[in-house]
Amino acid sequence: MNSPFQTIALIGKHKNPEIVVPLLSLAQYLTDHNFVVLFDHLTASYAPIKEYPALTLEEIGLQADLAVVMGGDGTMLNIARMLASYDVPLIGINQGRLGFLTDLSTDTMLETLSAMLDGQYVTERRMLLYAEVNRYKTNMFSSLAFNDVVLYRGISSGMIEFEVRINNEYVYTLRSDGLIVATPTGSTAYALSSGGPILHPSLDLIALVPVCPHTLSNRPIVVGPDASIEIIMQCSTDVRIQCDSHSSFDLEQTDKIIVRRFPKTVRFLHSINHSYYRMLREKLGWSEFP
Amino acid sequence: MNSPFQTIALIGKHKNPEIVVPLLSLAQYLTDHNFVVLFDHLTASYAPIKEYPALTLEEIGLQADLAVVMGGDGTMLNIARMLASYDVPLIGINQGRLGFLTDLSTDTMLETLSAMLDGQYVTERRMLLYAEVNRYKTNMFSSLAFNDVVLYRGISSGMIEFEVRINNEYVYTLRSDGLIVATPTGSTAYALSSGGPILHPSLDLIALVPVCPHTLSNRPIVVGPDASIEIIMQCSTDVRIQCDSHSSFDLEQTDKIIVRRFPKTVRFLHSINHSYYRMLREKLGWSEFP
Amino acid sequence: MNSPFQTIALIGKHKNPEIVVPLLSLAQYLTDHNFVVLFDHLTASYAPIKEYPALTLEEIGLQADLAVVMGGDGTMLNIARMLASYDVPLIGINQGRLGFLTDLSTDTMLETLSAMLDGQYVTERRMLLYAEVNRYKTNMFSSLAFNDVVLYRGISSGMIEFEVRINNEYVYTLRSDGLIVATPTGSTAYALSSGGPILHPSLDLIALVPVCPHTLSNRPIVVGPDASIEIIMQCSTDVRIQCDSHSSFDLEQTDKIIVRRFPKTVRFLHSINHSYYRMLREKLGWSEFP
Amino acid sequence: MNSPFQTIALIGKHKNPEIVVPLLSLAQYLTDHNFVVLFDHLTASYAPIKEYPALTLEEIGLQADLAVVMGGDGTMLNIARMLASYDVPLIGINQGRLGFLTDLSTDTMLETLSAMLDGQYVTERRMLLYAEVNRYKTNMFSSLAFNDVVLYRGISSGMIEFEVRINNEYVYTLRSDGLIVATPTGSTAYALSSGGPILHPSLDLIALVPVCPHTLSNRPIVVGPDASIEIIMQCSTDVRIQCDSHSSFDLEQTDKIIVRRFPKTVRFLHSINHSYYRMLREKLGWSEFP
Repeated sequence: MNSPFQTIALIGKHKNPEIVVPLLSLAQYLTDHNFVVLFDHLTASYAPIKEYPALTLEEIGLQADLAVVMGGDGTMLNIARMLASYDVPLIGINQGRLGFLTDLSTDTMLETLSAMLDGQYVTERRMLLYAEVNRYKTNMFSSLAFNDVVLYRGISSGMIEFEVRINNEYVYTLRSDGLIVATPTGSTAYALSSGGPILHPSLDLIALVPVCPHTLSNRPIVVGPDASIEIIMQCSTDVRIQCDSHSSFDLEQTDKIIVRRFPKTVRFLHSINHSYYRMLREKLGWSEFP
Repeated sequence: MNSPFQTIALIGKHKNPEIVVPLLSLAQYLTDHNFVVLFDHLTASYAPIKEYPALTLEEIGLQADLAVVMGGDGTMLNIARMLASYDVPLIGINQGRLGFLTDLSTDTMLETLSAMLDGQYVTERRMLLYAEVNRYKTNMFSSLAFNDVVLYRGISSGMIEFEVRINNEYVYTLRSDGLIVATPTGSTAYALSSGGPILHPSLDLIALVPVCPHTLSNRPIVVGPDASIEIIMQCSTDVRIQCDSHSSFDLEQTDKIIVRRFPKTVRFLHSINHSYYRMLREKLGWSEFP
Repeated sequence: MNSPFQTIALIGKHKNPEIVVPLLSLAQYLTDHNFVVLFDHLTASYAPIKEYPALTLEEIGLQADLAVVMGGDGTMLNIARMLASYDVPLIGINQGRLGFLTDLSTDTMLETLSAMLDGQYVTERRMLLYAEVNRYKTNMFSSLAFNDVVLYRGISSGMIEFEVRINNEYVYTLRSDGLIVATPTGSTAYALSSGGPILHPSLDLIALVPVCPHTLSNRPIVVGPDASIEIIMQCSTDVRIQCDSHSSFDLEQTDKIIVRRFPKTVRFLHSINHSYYRMLREKLGWSEFP
Repeated sequence: MNSPFQTIALIGKHKNPEIVVPLLSLAQYLTDHNFVVLFDHLTASYAPIKEYPALTLEEIGLQADLAVVMGGDGTMLNIARMLASYDVPLIGINQGRLGFLTDLSTDTMLETLSAMLDGQYVTERRMLLYAEVNRYKTNMFSSLAFNDVVLYRGISSGMIEFEVRINNEYVYTLRSDGLIVATPTGSTAYALSSGGPILHPSLDLIALVPVCPHTLSNRPIVVGPDASIEIIMQCSTDVRIQCDSHSSFDLEQTDKIIVRRFPKTVRFLHSINHSYYRMLREKLGWSEFP
């Protein structure tokens, strides 16, 4: 095989021993076909991979030509965000029901991967967001988000109130349960349950989707990737900012959140038979008509 | 004046000195017209009402023929719930923008009340809900709700999962931000922001309104007043039940919430010019066409 | 068998020869069990039922103790509306996917019916609507509706505009694609696609559901069965009123539509295993969790 | 005045004599400041403009450096579409309530225009759509649309059914009242009433917004400007395609509609104080908080 890839990292769902068998069979297959196989060290902690080196994600980012992630969309979301600065292309394999980001099945992975490693794949670049919280000009928190930056009321508060500005222009003051600032990737996650539109993942866009807004005529707004979104807290009740449900920070009145596009992108490789719209139909139950 | 009422209780918004002047002017007016005036003891704590007796709400419930509440809808919601067992009729007066439950204005209250005290009023009965939480057959929490019983995810959790049964029949298992079980009174509050229908307040109905449901085809369901609604927690993350945003309880996995109609009703008196639909148009901004 | 029924009418989906075989097998079964079997004369026009008398729906209404309808929800909707004045109980049998109103399957109909004819059934009464159009005090059109009365813009018009009054009280003036006035039965039909709530079919309620309203804060309203709903056309473009998609009438400016509850109800019989919520889950795709 | 413009065309709302006075006062002002003033010949048909030449829109497209349109958004929509091929910049003046596309007021137009003609303006380019209908490979209809291409059911039909493909890939088959294919400009028009998102007008995007879809989980999809959208009719009932409510065509089963970006754009000039978000707040009633 004359492949564009030489060194391939394998990463499994966190603490998931069920994934060991297909992961090892994949490692064996790749070794047999003369690829250099690396393992993520967290995966190595529960999988018996003595023959293969175990590296940190940072090392994988620097050394691998390709990372294959086995798990669900949640796993891929985390790995993609953590590898975002390294531009390593990613392939996702799912054991169960296919995901938006993990579109190969363990059942057919060897034949699909074989073609992809041979160069028959489609590349898709997806944008990420970068959020910061400033309090009296001090940076208190910052985080990447691949799905969304969510501003959310705590359990002990009623509606929260905040002001939104885009590129320094006042947009609105809203009382609501929260606000979702989503990427196209995140547009099929939480934002969709809250009435947001589906944004094709190839686009560079940011959706602002209110959660249960008190003003009934408020609607989701889609802006371009160069928008600098500023959210200024107007209430002192417990409110939190959450990025991809992996990192969060408790907010106070007058805190400023700034959300911008992250300068680097995530690169996914798909099989040439991959169809985003088929995935949508299946995951959202539109498949009434085949 | 030959009035159906003799003893009238006056209740002001909690800790709100701005309401003292109109409240005292109202008390004076009623005294001048030979009504017996009682004051709520909490209102008495910030208003100089030495000439009038200050009673607890329970005493007011037992002694008053009518209670006049001055404040916003939040104040009325609390007073109505606390007086629910006594069947004292209620009139609401608002200092600012009129509310759904406080439909007299301080500006015109004397002339409007004059007619109402003379018997020219419309009576409206509204239902309440009663919620209980049972853990291993032990009752852990119970509360009345006039607007809604809200099941809600905490700030540190993602979606919550629960099963809903009505009259012992399985309805659905839902993953969502929460569930609102609303009375017709509550149908124009939080439930409306979450996509619920407006239920005419004269009806005895219960609306189940999901908050950001993961299953996109899930929809609000309206059932009759004799429905016994059982919600069984299927997740262990932090979840809370909240009744009218006044009382709440932290839930655990397998906790059972039971929501039923409370056997007593709240009785509101309205001016004969009162129009529910006008209120809807004004509060929801439908007044584009006068 | 000691049945509460003696004379049973069989009615098949209009012009649907596929239904002949199960219909004849059902007729044979009933005859074998000493029931008197009648056929609808329209069904008789395509089914070879020489041994059985063929009657009009009116005659069936007067003579039958029970009518069994074989077809889909559309067939049942029509038959139920046409038999509404006769109070004949109805059972629905579906050849394909079960419907909201046709909840027995041809596959298992004999055993299910056997128990029901033996008295093991649940009765459900459902309300209907009655719509009239008046032009300068002349009645121009009137019709029953079991699902909904729909006011709708024609293909050549943009938004239509109309005023809604309930019990002679002004509710709103709306510009929209249309307005759906739905029964609980109709709440899972067109009204649901337009954002209306699901109303439990045992309730006597009327939902007013706007279709694509120009005022974004407009919302569905649910009123009681004694509401007299008046819709006054404010535009002269082509608009039509449609009742259950079976009868319709072209409207002109200042036409008044009046919608009220029809004084009689439809009576459905269900197997004691019938579950409305299971039907909801299946038809709306909530069955993700079994 | 040293202006980037020399020849300015004035265009008034169709058959609207009320606009004559401000239009003539504007013409006089421009003449006084040494601009060459042209009039649209349709406007000339009801306005006494003998001193000024009256030209067709095509001639205006070829000769004018700027077109000033006086009227509402509907007027501007039509003029912008008709001038789309000529790249003449447009300024909109509104007599009544300001519009999304007509953001100068007749009250203050002279001072605002003075600054704009002096070069103090912001340019905004907006995309248009181009729709074609093909029947058995014959082109039956084609039209530009600046707001939206709407596929819509006729008054005598129930739901329509059609298949959607994007860039030759199958997306879904839908039964619904219709489908709106909208530009960002159209995203605040009909598409918004039907649940679509607000797309910032500076973006090149296409939104597909279903109207009352039968599949409840169907949602609006936003795709990039290079999408070729193909809609294939699957039903024979009366259905129509409509472009900006100005041109329409009756469809038949198997007709193919193709919607693509039009290669030219509309160029609007705004005052430097113009704010799109302020317009949104005002037109959609978000102005509760100033």
